[in-house]
Amino acid sequence: MKKEKTTAAQKGKLKKALAQIADVLGSEHVSMESTDLINYTRCLYSRSQLLMRKCETYPPPDMVAWPENTEQVSAVLKIANALNIPVTPYGAGSGVCGGAIPLTGGITLDLKRLNKIKSIDEKSLLVTVQAGMIGEVFERELNSAGYSLGHFPSSIYTSSVGGWLAARSAGQLSTKYGKIEDMAVAIQAVLPDGSIITTKTTPRSSSGPDLKQMIIGSEGTLAVITEAVLKIHRLPEKRIFQGWKFKSVPDALKAIRLVMRTDVLPAVVRLYDEIDTALTMTALGYEASGSLLIIAFEGATGMTELEASVVERICIDEGGESLGPEAGEHWWKHRYDISYNQSKILANDGMLLDTIEVATVWSNLFNLYESMRKALEPFGTVLAHFSHVYREGGSIYYTIIANDDEKKVVKHYDEMWKAAMDACIAADGAISHHHGIGILKAPWMKDELGALFDVYKKIKNNLDPNNILNPGKLGL
Amino acid sequence: MKKEKTTAAQKGKLKKALAQIADVLGSEHVSMESTDLINYTRCLYSRSQLLMRKCETYPPPDMVAWPENTEQVSAVLKIANALNIPVTPYGAGSGVCGGAIPLTGGITLDLKRLNKIKSIDEKSLLVTVQAGMIGEVFERELNSAGYSLGHFPSSIYTSSVGGWLAARSAGQLSTKYGKIEDMAVAIQAVLPDGSIITTKTTPRSSSGPDLKQMIIGSEGTLAVITEAVLKIHRLPEKRIFQGWKFKSVPDALKAIRLVMRTDVLPAVVRLYDEIDTALTMTALGYEASGSLLIIAFEGATGMTELEASVVERICIDEGGESLGPEAGEHWWKHRYDISYNQSKILANDGMLLDTIEVATVWSNLFNLYESMRKALEPFGTVLAHFSHVYREGGSIYYTIIANDDEKKVVKHYDEMWKAAMDACIAADGAISHHHGIGILKAPWMKDELGALFDVYKKIKNNLDPNNILNPGKLGL
Repeated sequence: MKKEKTTAAQKGKLKKALAQIADVLGSEHVSMESTDLINYTRCLYSRSQLLMRKCETYPPPDMVAWPENTEQVSAVLKIANALNIPVTPYGAGSGVCGGAIPLTGGITLDLKRLNKIKSIDEKSLLVTVQAGMIGEVFERELNSAGYSLGHFPSSIYTSSVGGWLAARSAGQLSTKYGKIEDMAVAIQAVLPDGSIITTKTTPRSSSGPDLKQMIIGSEGTLAVITEAVLKIHRLPEKRIFQGWKFKSVPDALKAIRLVMRTDVLPAVVRLYDEIDTALTMTALGYEASGSLLIIAFEGATGMTELEASVVERICIDEGGESLGPEAGEHWWKHRYDISYNQSKILANDGMLLDTIEVATVWSNLFNLYESMRKALEPFGTVLAHFSHVYREGGSIYYTIIANDDEKKVVKHYDEMWKAAMDACIAADGAISHHHGIGILKAPWMKDELGALFDVYKKIKNNLDPNNILNPGKLGL
Repeated sequence: MKKEKTTAAQKGKLKKALAQIADVLGSEHVSMESTDLINYTRCLYSRSQLLMRKCETYPPPDMVAWPENTEQVSAVLKIANALNIPVTPYGAGSGVCGGAIPLTGGITLDLKRLNKIKSIDEKSLLVTVQAGMIGEVFERELNSAGYSLGHFPSSIYTSSVGGWLAARSAGQLSTKYGKIEDMAVAIQAVLPDGSIITTKTTPRSSSGPDLKQMIIGSEGTLAVITEAVLKIHRLPEKRIFQGWKFKSVPDALKAIRLVMRTDVLPAVVRLYDEIDTALTMTALGYEASGSLLIIAFEGATGMTELEASVVERICIDEGGESLGPEAGEHWWKHRYDISYNQSKILANDGMLLDTIEVATVWSNLFNLYESMRKALEPFGTVLAHFSHVYREGGSIYYTIIANDDEKKVVKHYDEMWKAAMDACIAADGAISHHHGIGILKAPWMKDELGALFDVYKKIKNNLDPNNILNPGKLGL
C-alpha cells in the first residue's frame, strides 16, 4: 500500500518543517531517515502483519519527531498546522486497529520521551504521569512507592499511558479498578492549533460538561494527550483466586450476573467458553474442560475473604464445580503470555489470527455471543471469553484462528471483520469494548454512533480545520 | 429586569411559531398567556427570589411549549431553529444557578409531560426513563418494583431526571452509587437542528470518545436531553448509621480520608464544621457540638456490618467519639427538610441566604475550606459541611446567611459570590461540585476551564450556529 508520490511542493514544506522542528527539539530529535521511518508503518494491527508476509507495508511517515514535553508537542503541532502537514501521534505501537499508522504520511509524533512520573500526591492517591511512559515501567515505579494503578491491559509491556487514554483502554482488573476513563482525574492535551488544554484536578465538578471525555478515546483525532493525573491505589493486602467449572456458558453467565448484583466487586472475572477453555488454558499449561470461570478478589484481608465467600455461595447454587485456586493462579502468572505469541503465529504463511472484543448488556449478552460466533465460524476456529463484567453487562472477547490459503488470507481477513461487525451491529452490541476503532472498525462508526457520528465529525472539522491530526481514522 | 421590547417582526415570528407548534403538539400544549409565562421567570436561584421581594423578575419567555415525547421536542426545535427563536429547556425549576431562566425570551420548553418510566431491564439492572419525570415519583416507582436509583439530591421532590443530567447532579449517597454521569448508560437528546441522538446502551465501549459526557452537564446549551438509560440497584438489605464527634475539622477530615483509602464504600459521609453542627443539627432538632460526622452504610447485611466495623476502628483511632446511630438516623429522616426552608427564609426582607458547593483533592481540601470561609465571612454567618467524598478528594458545601439591609442585599449578594468564586479559583478548587453554572457562575467559566472553554465555545457555535439553545448561559 503506497501513498501518493510526494510532490516538489510537499518536499519543500517537509524540509521547512524539518528545520523548524529541529530548531525546537534539537536536530537529533527529528528524522527523515528511512531506517527510522519504516518502524512506523505498522503496529499490532493483524492486517499490517499479514501484509508484512508479502513484504508490503502501510505507508511510512515522511518524518518522525521525538518531543520531550507538552510545550514541544505544542510547537510541533503549530509548525505542522501552519504548513498543513498530517501528524500521527504514536505511543508504543501496540494498537490492534491501525490507529497509529500514518495513512497519508506527514509527521509521526512519537511520545516515548515523555516518560516520567512527575509527582505522586499520596494524600489524594493521585499520580501525575507523562503520556509516553510504558505501562509496565509505570506500574513498577508505582509499586516501589507502595501503590498500583490497577490497570493491567495485556499489552502492558508495550503500551503507553497516552495510548491507553487515546484508545480508551480497559485492563484485566477493570471490574474493581475501573477503566482508564474512570482513572483519569485530569488530562493535559494539545489541540491541532498547538493550544494546550489542562483540565482541573478535582474529584468531580459540574462546571459544564466533562470535555476531557471528548479527548479520551478520540485516538489522536482531536488532540494529542501529553499528561494525565490518574487515581492510584495502595497495594492489596491479599489476593484470593477461585476457579469454577460450569456445564455451559449460559449457566456460568447467570452466576456472574448474580455476583454483579451483590455489592461484591471482584478484581478479575473471566469466563472461557468450552473451546477457549480447552485451547487457551491448555496453551497456558493448564488442563481444563467445560466452561472455566476464574474469579479473583484483592484488597484488605477481611473484605476479600467476605467477597470470596459470597461468590462461592452463588457459584455453588448455580451449579458450579469448584476447581480450587490453581486455575486462577496459573492464569495470573501467565496472563500476559498469550498476546505476545500472536505476532509469532502471524509470521507464518497462511495463518489468519485476530481478536474481536464487543460488549452489551446482560439481557443481550448471550444473544450477541451466539450471533457473532455464528458469523465468525465460517472463517476459522472461534474461541471466546467474557473478560470485563459490569453490573449491567459485559464484554465478549473472540479469538479467530485459521490456517488459510496465503493468497486469500487478506481477503478472508477483511470478510471476517465485515461479518463480525455486521453481526455485532445487527445484534445491538458495541463494536469495540477496549481495542478502539483505528482504521479497522472505521466503516462501522456511522452504524455504531448514529446521528452522534455527525456531531463527532463536526467537532473534528471545527477543532482541526486542516485535518492534520491522525487523518483517515475512526471514519472521520 | 426587562428584556428588550418585542418588535413587530419578532411578534410575527412568534405567531408563526405558535401556529406551527400547535399543529404538532395540539393547541392546548403551547401557550403565550402571561399567566403561564410568569411561572418561568424564576427558579430556586436565590437572586431571583431576592428580586421577587422587590416585585422584580427575570424576563419571562414569550411562549411555553409542553411536548410529550422526543419527536415533539425535535419538532419544536426545528421550528425554533428555522425561525431563530431562543429555546430554554425546563425540567422542574429547582436549579439554583438560573440555568432555566429565559434571558432573551423565546420558547420555554417544559418537559414535564415526558414523565414515564418506559421500561425496566431487570437482568441488566437498567431503567429507561423520560427526562421530565420528577425524582421522587421516579424513585417511588422504582421502589415498588424492588429497585432504587441510588440518586438522592436534596431537590428530589422538585427536580427531574433531565435536570439532573443537564446540570450534572450528585445525590446524598453518591459515594456509594456514583453521580448522575456514572449512572447514565445511555441518553437520548435532541440537537438544536432537531436531529435526535441516541447513544448505544452498552456497559462500555471504546468506539471513539464518550460524547454523551459532552451533553451531560451542558445545561441545555448543546442539546435537550429527552430520555436516559440509568443503572438501578436492588433495595438494600440493611442500613447502618454511625455518628462521630471530632475535636476539629482537620481531625475528622483525616479520618474520612483514611476510610476512603480502604475498600469500604460508605453510602453517606457528611462532616459538619463546628458552626454547621451547631446550627443545622439544632434546626433539625438534634443537639450536637464539635465537628459532627455522619456515616451510613447500606447493602447486604454481612458486607455492611464489615464496612461499619472497619470505619469504626479508623474513627476511634483518629480520636472520634462515638455518638451512636441517632444523629445519622435523625439526619436521614429530615434530610430533605433544610432545602425547602430556604425559600421561606428568603421571603423576608433583608435576608441574604445561599449555598455554595466546591470541590478539590484531599491535599488541598482544608486549604480550600479555609480560603473560602475567610472570603465569605465578611458577608454573613458561614456554615460548611463536606458531603460528597471520594478516594481522591471531596466537596465543601457552604451556607451563608445574613440579615442585611434590604436596599443593599442584591449588591452584597453579588459581591459575596464574586469573593467566593475568586477565592475558589485562587485556591485551585472546582467552582461547582453539583449545582452547575447557569448564569450565576458563568463569569468564572474561563478561569475554571482555561483553554478548554474556547473548545466548549467552538462546539457550541458549531452545533448551534443560531445560538437558539439556552442562550447566555455558562458564559457561552
